Amino acid sequence: MALLVVGSIALDTVKTPVEEHGDLFGGSASYAATAASYFSPVKLVGIVGTDFPQTEFDFWKSRKIDTAGVQRVEGKTFRWSGEYAWDLNTRQTRSTELNVFEKFEPKLPRSYRKADFVLLANIAPALQSRVLKQMERPHFVVADTMNLWIETTRADLDTLLPNVDLLILNDSEAREMTKETSLIKAGRGIRKMGPRYVAIKKGEHGALLFGDNEFFSCGAYPLEDIHDPTGAGDTFAGGMAGYLAGTVRKVHFTDLRKAMIYGSVLASFCVEAFSLERLRNLTMDQINERYEAFKLMSQFEVIT
Amino acid sequence: MALLVVGSIALDTVKTPVEEHGDLFGGSASYAATAASYFSPVKLVGIVGTDFPQTEFDFWKSRKIDTAGVQRVEGKTFRWSGEYAWDLNTRQTRSTELNVFEKFEPKLPRSYRKADFVLLANIAPALQSRVLKQMERPHFVVADTMNLWIETTRADLDTLLPNVDLLILNDSEAREMTKETSLIKAGRGIRKMGPRYVAIKKGEHGALLFGDNEFFSCGAYPLEDIHDPTGAGDTFAGGMAGYLAGTVRKVHFTDLRKAMIYGSVLASFCVEAFSLERLRNLTMDQINERYEAFKLMSQFEVIT
Repeated sequence: MALLVVGSIALDTVKTPVEEHGDLFGGSASYAATAASYFSPVKLVGIVGTDFPQTEFDFWKSRKIDTAGVQRVEGKTFRWSGEYAWDLNTRQTRSTELNVFEKFEPKLPRSYRKADFVLLANIAPALQSRVLKQMERPHFVVADTMNLWIETTRADLDTLLPNVDLLILNDSEAREMTKETSLIKAGRGIRKMGPRYVAIKKGEHGALLFGDNEFFSCGAYPLEDIHDPTGAGDTFAGGMAGYLAGTVRKVHFTDLRKAMIYGSVLASFCVEAFSLERLRNLTMDQINERYEAFKLMSQFEVIT
Repeated sequence: MALLVVGSIALDTVKTPVEEHGDLFGGSASYAATAASYFSPVKLVGIVGTDFPQTEFDFWKSRKIDTAGVQRVEGKTFRWSGEYAWDLNTRQTRSTELNVFEKFEPKLPRSYRKADFVLLANIAPALQSRVLKQMERPHFVVADTMNLWIETTRADLDTLLPNVDLLILNDSEAREMTKETSLIKAGRGIRKMGPRYVAIKKGEHGALLFGDNEFFSCGAYPLEDIHDPTGAGDTFAGGMAGYLAGTVRKVHFTDLRKAMIYGSVLASFCVEAFSLERLRNLTMDQINERYEAFKLMSQFEVIT
């Protein structure tokens, strides 16, 4: 089934201790939609300015990503610039130019409204809620968020949460949201705020998944070198939601376990190059090879 | 088969943000031997002073831990005092009194020398080497270490490593030892220093295991509350080594995977109370229940 993805579409400038690149194709929806497109048809919702390259529309088309919901308006595309510390684990935002994003009002084409699966990639929770309101009872809603919204628009986030089936956030955001140092307490605490399932991303340490009396923990794919962590979280969310939309009719905890692994696999490719470069031309063989590696690296009861 | 355990036996004072207790039974060998005793007979090597309570010898006896190699000499037992930060993730040593430990020269009773499995729990690497020299070709040698030895007696540690089959250390120690930020690079780098296998403990994030082209990653048991992290690493090492000694004739990577889970299970009990309190009276049912929980929390290809 199709997955509706809404989020930011951006042109990024990224500086790591080793390299700096500008005018990079980025944004939460770009990463998420591309990752998801390996598993299911995608209907993209977003906004770009007149400076946005037509080549990316061609790329989306090549990946069967429907762009009927992408508005192209007068002005400049949303721009973000960030710099990573020496260990690539922390980053500072150098600048954010909202540009056309400032007045973004998501409008769903009629053909989008019946999508059964929705990924509300990282944007303001009020916008995420306004997308949901235009939809006809989706079966499964995944939402991503970030520290900015926890700190500045908490009421909007709290309004959204009961309408979310799976909330994805990272470890520091989970701690911030609950004021708990234990991630186990944090994950369980966030479930009480509304979402049936909560996934906590821990970067190099993998991810945790919380359900009703259910728990899943996975490691990260063992990469020696990371080139650019930008978009890894968005890619994780896109891989998870795409796998669910493309494979499952009714989501159970068992499906979410596999979805976490596929999200982790896609994220492992994402960080191997700047922008979406590594995600543009993957094959299902490459994806499944890493999925199998996850099996090998996590099993301790070998079936012989 | 029997496991020889050598390390420190101590009386600890531990302060957490919530509680403070003194005269606690502790030390790397005490934790490791107790954890191991759930899986195999243990032959303990260490030293205590005349202030050391006879009740602990009785406890060892009750757990079938052979104390023929524990010297009791005139003077005070080794004492350590530490204080944990609010999140229990970092600690400061407040004081260390070597006392009788200062002149400790491990002497293996004749009955110890043929042990097939050895755990060199955390003590100075020169002492660890002197224990190995008294042994007749053990099949499998596990060693634990700490930042102190990496910083102050690195040459001794480097001499020991080629004689070690499995080195266990924590994430910050692995990074310090190799000057690598990536734990994947660190784990692989340490193997080149001698040990066939390397286990990196990551506290709440679980543990990683490196072999020749083999890799295993596991999470930590999901505990909401931790009361005292002291000894968790020693317990992990003891659980791993004990499981191997008690279950396996010839160690393969498959056995090490299971051993990591048993080590994690024992460590999860350890941190639930101060000192060794939670480790004194476990049942195999309790241990196996958590082992099963590890299976459930890490599988994503369900066999139905």
